[in-house]
Amino acid sequence: MGAFTDDELAGVYKAIYARRDIRRFSDEPVPEDVLERILEAAHHAPSVGFSQPWDLVVVTDDETKTEIAEIADRAIAAAREGYEEPRRSEFSALKLEGIRESPVNICVTCDPTRGAPHVLGRSSMRRTDVYSTCLAVQNLWLAARAEGIGVGWVSVLYPSEVQQVLEIPPHVKPVAYLCVGYPADGFPEEPVLQQAGWRDRIDVDELLHEDRWEGSGA
Amino acid sequence: MGAFTDDELAGVYKAIYARRDIRRFSDEPVPEDVLERILEAAHHAPSVGFSQPWDLVVVTDDETKTEIAEIADRAIAAAREGYEEPRRSEFSALKLEGIRESPVNICVTCDPTRGAPHVLGRSSMRRTDVYSTCLAVQNLWLAARAEGIGVGWVSVLYPSEVQQVLEIPPHVKPVAYLCVGYPADGFPEEPVLQQAGWRDRIDVDELLHEDRWEGSGA
Repeated sequence: MGAFTDDELAGVYKAIYARRDIRRFSDEPVPEDVLERILEAAHHAPSVGFSQPWDLVVVTDDETKTEIAEIADRAIAAAREGYEEPRRSEFSALKLEGIRESPVNICVTCDPTRGAPHVLGRSSMRRTDVYSTCLAVQNLWLAARAEGIGVGWVSVLYPSEVQQVLEIPPHVKPVAYLCVGYPADGFPEEPVLQQAGWRDRIDVDELLHEDRWEGSGA
Repeated sequence: MGAFTDDELAGVYKAIYARRDIRRFSDEPVPEDVLERILEAAHHAPSVGFSQPWDLVVVTDDETKTEIAEIADRAIAAAREGYEEPRRSEFSALKLEGIRESPVNICVTCDPTRGAPHVLGRSSMRRTDVYSTCLAVQNLWLAARAEGIGVGWVSVLYPSEVQQVLEIPPHVKPVAYLCVGYPADGFPEEPVLQQAGWRDRIDVDELLHEDRWEGSGA
């Protein structure tokens, strides 16, 4: 595959800029072929030593979703206790997950034993297996956006409990729990936490450094 | 931004499937506007609690690159010692990094104090800050591919030494060290480690599970 046409290039940037974390889903099912394409996209992420350490647990069963959602309910209640007012009320007003409503949930895991013990590139940076797994998540997220499908990453969860519910083996680590489906209200213009006044986007110039950390452009 | 045209959708999948880890670079410089676009793409990754925990250290200085490359030389020599033959010879034959040759290196870091102590979504999954940083790497990688720019992630490095060379503050964690530039020999059809016979791609069906881990499609 060669150079990108202008439209293909625009598509990549559009996916990057129009991707959102979605928490409100319609009950319209995700077509099987679309789901296959976004799972396949995840699997074509780069991975340390080409180890492909991810697995994808696709949850559509209501009972399983309910068990996971109950974990989220407790984790959200626990997080809320940590905030002082007025942050606590702002936090309480946010919708943080769509586990029950979304037609498909996907748990993306990392198996540190895959290709081990000598995974090329992991001897000096041990957690590159988890890093690779995250790259797979972003592939899935961008492919989904291009297909018009919303994804919401739920991290207000106790991962060891998720592991138990999904019967994930003890040596495998749940990295991402994703809610997947058509968004109920489309894709918002801005990130939902920015819209809600929770936090603003940082100016990229504040995050750029030239050659050394102190060589900041800011 | 609404639905994707067929060409835009194709562009997203093309970036995902045609992206490669590049280790051989031409000395053609990366145009400033292209570099800005791929850095900005990184910054538009999703992040836990919209915390945007990444920084981007853009290294173009030859002396700095040489110092980093010397760290890689030692890490590669150390990794080689761990292999038995014939794997050791196969490993030695691989080109693993293009730190010196690539016109631009980018170190992507994670600052766990950004937005702390109460980063929404991080109380129950602590390392979601690093996960977010990896999502930024994948945005950068896909945008670069669409622009015809190659990226190689070098993890045969001692991160604490990279931290010292780049004068990264102690509380900030280097996550990815990327070589960036036009590829010397284009983008290979297959991952270089697959081409070299190092490892094959796993059939995606072996990695899919339905509802519970044991509900594997495999």
